Amino acid sequence: MKPTAILLLHCPDKQGIITEITKFITDNNGNIVYLDQYVDTLEGRFFMRVEWELDDFLIPTDKITEYIDTLYSKRYDLKFHLYLSNVKPRMALFVSKMSHCLYDLLARFKAGELSVDIPCIVSNHEDLRYVAEQFGIPYYVWSIKKDWSNKREVEDAEMKLLRDENIDFIVLARYMQIISDEMIESYPNRIINIHHSFLPAFIGARPYHQAYQRGVKIIGATSHYVTAELDAGPIIEQDVVRITHKDTPDTLVLKGKDLEKIVLSRAVKKHIEHKVLTYKNKTIIFS
Amino acid sequence: MKPTAILLLHCPDKQGIITEITKFITDNNGNIVYLDQYVDTLEGRFFMRVEWELDDFLIPTDKITEYIDTLYSKRYDLKFHLYLSNVKPRMALFVSKMSHCLYDLLARFKAGELSVDIPCIVSNHEDLRYVAEQFGIPYYVWSIKKDWSNKREVEDAEMKLLRDENIDFIVLARYMQIISDEMIESYPNRIINIHHSFLPAFIGARPYHQAYQRGVKIIGATSHYVTAELDAGPIIEQDVVRITHKDTPDTLVLKGKDLEKIVLSRAVKKHIEHKVLTYKNKTIIFS
Amino acid sequence: MKPTAILLLHCPDKQGIITEITKFITDNNGNIVYLDQYVDTLEGRFFMRVEWELDDFLIPTDKITEYIDTLYSKRYDLKFHLYLSNVKPRMALFVSKMSHCLYDLLARFKAGELSVDIPCIVSNHEDLRYVAEQFGIPYYVWSIKKDWSNKREVEDAEMKLLRDENIDFIVLARYMQIISDEMIESYPNRIINIHHSFLPAFIGARPYHQAYQRGVKIIGATSHYVTAELDAGPIIEQDVVRITHKDTPDTLVLKGKDLEKIVLSRAVKKHIEHKVLTYKNKTIIFS
Amino acid sequence: MKPTAILLLHCPDKQGIITEITKFITDNNGNIVYLDQYVDTLEGRFFMRVEWELDDFLIPTDKITEYIDTLYSKRYDLKFHLYLSNVKPRMALFVSKMSHCLYDLLARFKAGELSVDIPCIVSNHEDLRYVAEQFGIPYYVWSIKKDWSNKREVEDAEMKLLRDENIDFIVLARYMQIISDEMIESYPNRIINIHHSFLPAFIGARPYHQAYQRGVKIIGATSHYVTAELDAGPIIEQDVVRITHKDTPDTLVLKGKDLEKIVLSRAVKKHIEHKVLTYKNKTIIFS
Repeated sequence: MKPTAILLLHCPDKQGIITEITKFITDNNGNIVYLDQYVDTLEGRFFMRVEWELDDFLIPTDKITEYIDTLYSKRYDLKFHLYLSNVKPRMALFVSKMSHCLYDLLARFKAGELSVDIPCIVSNHEDLRYVAEQFGIPYYVWSIKKDWSNKREVEDAEMKLLRDENIDFIVLARYMQIISDEMIESYPNRIINIHHSFLPAFIGARPYHQAYQRGVKIIGATSHYVTAELDAGPIIEQDVVRITHKDTPDTLVLKGKDLEKIVLSRAVKKHIEHKVLTYKNKTIIFS
Repeated sequence: MKPTAILLLHCPDKQGIITEITKFITDNNGNIVYLDQYVDTLEGRFFMRVEWELDDFLIPTDKITEYIDTLYSKRYDLKFHLYLSNVKPRMALFVSKMSHCLYDLLARFKAGELSVDIPCIVSNHEDLRYVAEQFGIPYYVWSIKKDWSNKREVEDAEMKLLRDENIDFIVLARYMQIISDEMIESYPNRIINIHHSFLPAFIGARPYHQAYQRGVKIIGATSHYVTAELDAGPIIEQDVVRITHKDTPDTLVLKGKDLEKIVLSRAVKKHIEHKVLTYKNKTIIFS
Repeated sequence: MKPTAILLLHCPDKQGIITEITKFITDNNGNIVYLDQYVDTLEGRFFMRVEWELDDFLIPTDKITEYIDTLYSKRYDLKFHLYLSNVKPRMALFVSKMSHCLYDLLARFKAGELSVDIPCIVSNHEDLRYVAEQFGIPYYVWSIKKDWSNKREVEDAEMKLLRDENIDFIVLARYMQIISDEMIESYPNRIINIHHSFLPAFIGARPYHQAYQRGVKIIGATSHYVTAELDAGPIIEQDVVRITHKDTPDTLVLKGKDLEKIVLSRAVKKHIEHKVLTYKNKTIIFS
Repeated sequence: MKPTAILLLHCPDKQGIITEITKFITDNNGNIVYLDQYVDTLEGRFFMRVEWELDDFLIPTDKITEYIDTLYSKRYDLKFHLYLSNVKPRMALFVSKMSHCLYDLLARFKAGELSVDIPCIVSNHEDLRYVAEQFGIPYYVWSIKKDWSNKREVEDAEMKLLRDENIDFIVLARYMQIISDEMIESYPNRIINIHHSFLPAFIGARPYHQAYQRGVKIIGATSHYVTAELDAGPIIEQDVVRITHKDTPDTLVLKGKDLEKIVLSRAVKKHIEHKVLTYKNKTIIFS
């Protein structure tokens, strides 16, 4: 695999933008290996993901962002971000007591499915330290008191760790704690949560019990970016499974665990591959 | 197919109830062709559907209800209902302007999939009269004024029609009107609605637009019995379909129509086959 | 909706092709309203669907094909086809005795979901004439004898009808007859079939009985273009539904009918919208 | 959880069998906590799973099988098996080089989801020894030579291990080796395999490549009991996932891995809970 540059961009829709960008790349000897674009005709907005090989590319890698900025940003009112395939994102995992999402992500990581570094696992409980130790990843515990009296202090310590470890994005692998607005603002669209319901149904606590009470025939799981409003951030991925009247809250939890880990992993993969663009609380998912 | 009796019952769970009921049937020469039961251990309640052939059954058909009532009702605190396979339920269809659910039900009816009589189609618009005429079914129109000033009058006329036609149950095939509490009480768990969302997400008006706004990755449809609370009755059937960021409200409506008609038809079939038991706003669906 | 031109093309992958084609359209005042492309990196082949508004387009509509041919065909070794949104394709329906797919397509047609003309319905049985009459569409019956002694004669008559009616494509809506190679060659990738199994499982006759025998837990339906080899043509769409050990061949048929009509309709829609490209017995489906 | 007895049985269908069995249990003070039965009307065969609490049961636990045998076996031509909830089945895992199914099962085991003992993991490669070590489970490697010259010898060693460890059933968690008829006969309906296709489509080697070649729009995974005929044993569980023309064999493998582990785990759970009955190469799955 040759190293590539990945450009994610969006701007007001205007004829010629694809022509211009692809011309810029090919004129500079970039070999395009992926191109997908999408026009939201209701919003009048253009979205694009383009990836090209860097080995013969005439513009130095550390200058590409500057060139795009200078040449196109103003002209097209462009929002964009450039990623390099040979720079691994650094992912922090936040967990609580349930191991299924953590094991699923670590097993994929170990099998080479996730091109990331995982410098730390953070928890408010000791319960999953053994999993971290199985995989040789540092495990940090800060317990948040029930009255939240030390919440600020804990988040400060966590934020320091995230900075020290140069964390790019955070995965809440069934963390079960509210994240403060401050931390959310530090990682905009870079904190991925898994909620154990088919959002927007069953927001908040104990969604499987809510689903049981309501008597639904299908349950779901939703992975989304965390925003200030609870369970209301941009949805990355959802999936569902059929249930029956025979299911109890306990069996819903078991069936749901399978959904949660698959849905969360799909979302994490899409994020790592830079295939998610966020606009106005919704996501464009490139395939 | 020999004529059968179908007994749907529920009662507090107690050892021996299956033994007793099956013994009652077989001792009286009834050949059991279907038996399914379910114990809700959290509620401590027993549910059962049993069907047996009537031709050699020793108890006269019109006495069976009385015998079960006398022998078991008090002893087991039984709620039950007896249905006869050779008595076709009489179904009224309520429609508005969209034809997909109506066509789907009538095409099945015509193909012999639904063992019912359909004496009337009721609407608040003339739009679908041509469909009723294609299938030779009387079509009644009562327009409800926007200010609801004639709502009572219209419902009185509808109720008279339903009584005159001995209607057993009503299917709201995208009727798009609120049903009054009075009509609901006259047909408890006998008015089947299709709501074009994955309930309890997107209750009320324009659910596809709500889904579009929220940016969900899956949409659904829900068939339920109508109760006084809007879109909150016992759910009979749900199904979903995957969507993407490329979908607009218009394409959601198109994808949703396929879901709606399939989900509604499944629910209607289950109801006609007497395979739905309702308890505390939830359904037990026998297979 | 303004009239548009739709260009479907494929060619060996080569840098610059998107730039070139989009420049050709925009330089001639075409407003692009849809663009999707796909590179099959294993085959080294480029596929594209682009649609633009014709009202200000500088090249006369009847010259566009010629221009594309002259300018790009040889240079890029291009295979392409141009469609015009204001030219409705003419669709022939072939049916046998089961009505579910026919009703489903005609109900959609009547609701304005399918932008086609339907000049004729062809069958080998009288059974579904009443459906054709409900919708006011001419119904032609040619019975094929069991020993196929008149097969050639029947197909000649059918081919004459198809020519007389300027039929663009044929939908086998559960036609249940083998189509001759001659007819297939006259309509390459323009005969759409629905096979009642999840191909390539259960090729040939009575797939639901085969599925029952094998004890599968899921059944499917497959819509594909008809080629000379039975049930082996390019797959356009598939879907599945879960079954259980309680299902009999009869209930599989009922569950399957719902799959068949939805899958067939999705395939027909994609075809009508010119969103299917076929290459080496596989389809590219634009979204 | 009180200790229970679980009775799985099947016999020719005959009125009164449910009454008889449930009466036997309740007359002897057994409290029935689960009962499900199914009549295959085409085969004329009755299937039943019944579970009852043992604490007040009058018949000694080690005599129950004898009593059922004496009282009912001959009379009803009964095939049955009795399981005790407090006797954990002993499961052997056979693996090769891919870790996803192994991790998934061990993570569930560790989380208490699988009520089994896992005395050994067997492989023909060293690759996954680190996983076994992470979970502290003995890992045995016997390499089978390419020419199979030592196949018999290896299987003898494996069989000895299985006997020494009192293994009840074997799970082939992507073992990728043919099992000899001799071993299959020693564990009838007690070797669970996961095949990475939607059987009976794509039997044999490299099913994802076969699926890619055929151009299917959905791929699947199938868990089944191993029988002498390759990939033809009774199916326990299947599931599918939608794919597109953009998928390559490599991405199919990745998508398939998620299916495989979920489908295999569901099958293993059903087996452990004694909810699978096998009859004539098909399974009855109790819910």
